[in-house]
Amino acid sequence: RSGEMAKLTQLIDNEVFQAYATYAAIVLVKMMLMSPITAYFRMTRKAFANPEDTASFGKGDSAKKYLRTDPDVERVRRGHLNDLENIVPFLGIGFLYALSGPDLYTALLHFRIFAGARIAHSFAYLIPLPQPSRGLSWAIGYAVTMSMAYKVLKTALYL
Amino acid sequence: RSGEMAKLTQLIDNEVFQAYATYAAIVLVKMMLMSPITAYFRMTRKAFANPEDTASFGKGDSAKKYLRTDPDVERVRRGHLNDLENIVPFLGIGFLYALSGPDLYTALLHFRIFAGARIAHSFAYLIPLPQPSRGLSWAIGYAVTMSMAYKVLKTALYL
Amino acid sequence: RSGEMAKLTQLIDNEVFQAYATYAAIVLVKMMLMSPITAYFRMTRKAFANPEDTASFGKGDSAKKYLRTDPDVERVRRGHLNDLENIVPFLGIGFLYALSGPDLYTALLHFRIFAGARIAHSFAYLIPLPQPSRGLSWAIGYAVTMSMAYKVLKTALYL
Repeated sequence: RSGEMAKLTQLIDNEVFQAYATYAAIVLVKMMLMSPITAYFRMTRKAFANPEDTASFGKGDSAKKYLRTDPDVERVRRGHLNDLENIVPFLGIGFLYALSGPDLYTALLHFRIFAGARIAHSFAYLIPLPQPSRGLSWAIGYAVTMSMAYKVLKTALYL
Repeated sequence: RSGEMAKLTQLIDNEVFQAYATYAAIVLVKMMLMSPITAYFRMTRKAFANPEDTASFGKGDSAKKYLRTDPDVERVRRGHLNDLENIVPFLGIGFLYALSGPDLYTALLHFRIFAGARIAHSFAYLIPLPQPSRGLSWAIGYAVTMSMAYKVLKTALYL
Repeated sequence: RSGEMAKLTQLIDNEVFQAYATYAAIVLVKMMLMSPITAYFRMTRKAFANPEDTASFGKGDSAKKYLRTDPDVERVRRGHLNDLENIVPFLGIGFLYALSGPDLYTALLHFRIFAGARIAHSFAYLIPLPQPSRGLSWAIGYAVTMSMAYKVLKTALYL
């Protein structure tokens, strides 16, 4: 490994950054799982969005009836979109936060709570659990991200 | 703070990167505000997407009628999705741009115009303002991101 | 250029990171192209989502009829959302992967296949090509991202 590479990997040798890398990868993989779950519900509920996806069911009206929305499919899709809306801010703000020099314990606390809240959110959405399960898990992840944003803006503010 | 951490925080000690961190955090927090605005309209317009969200309004048909779409809710949701579609590219391309060695003045100009355009876009969408307000604010943010992408590809091109 | 900046740009002087920067910029620009394509179909199909967008077609019912969904517009929008769902994980996981010390050849292989698969996915979605074109191109990009996530978690795991 070259000297240049060694410098690069200093980033990933830092413990706070390693923790960020770990939890960022976990929540992104969790979000990615929403795609096969959507596909599973589309296939078991026979509810598709594109005519070319129903071609294997025959031609004309026999296939056309599968071009429809299904409550279970729409539920997973809403969960997926909610992931995007919340994990994208975590990805960006969490990265800047990891560079802002937090102490390791505080950083781990933020990352762990966020990841736990988002995993809980997915279970609450998909099972579904009665409210306020989903609302609460959403709010916890949201608050953690806002707390990191505050630290980033306090450390790096350059307008 | 360890020597390792010191190296890490060199990133955030750089002025261009500080400016990126500041404006990235600002536009992400702005995007995050779309969630409580959606919740506000869902509650005041009584228009929900999930049966478990209407359980507090009673059972059966008395709750079921609140499972509906509302033009104001859908408007905020479109604004939120448009944020995702435009702030995600800014986040990635802006980061690479900040590392591509732009001069501070040029970088600040890009970041400020992007953030201003996206804030204007949200007001144009939510008030709503007559066109071309929304279209123009969208186009300005888009052009700024494309300008940064050009600089990134010119500096880093490695196919 | 200051010494500080020189340290910063070491990141972008690294070949693996340059390759990441190049392919990340390419897939983000590709995703951004979905916006003007949506606008093109909205205007040629005269299918808009916001009343203020149809004001130029006159007032009252003569404009209201253009507030509708159109299959071609919805198709591009689904393609755009699928890009978000897949390019966001690539952006985050690919960045961490580039920092995890992969060898250049392996990294380039991952980045090139992902970018190729996503470009193929857009063509498969927009033309549209018969299945399994779209499903396969989606699955290849998904598998590449998962492979990088595995490398990141193996290298950086810090729970």
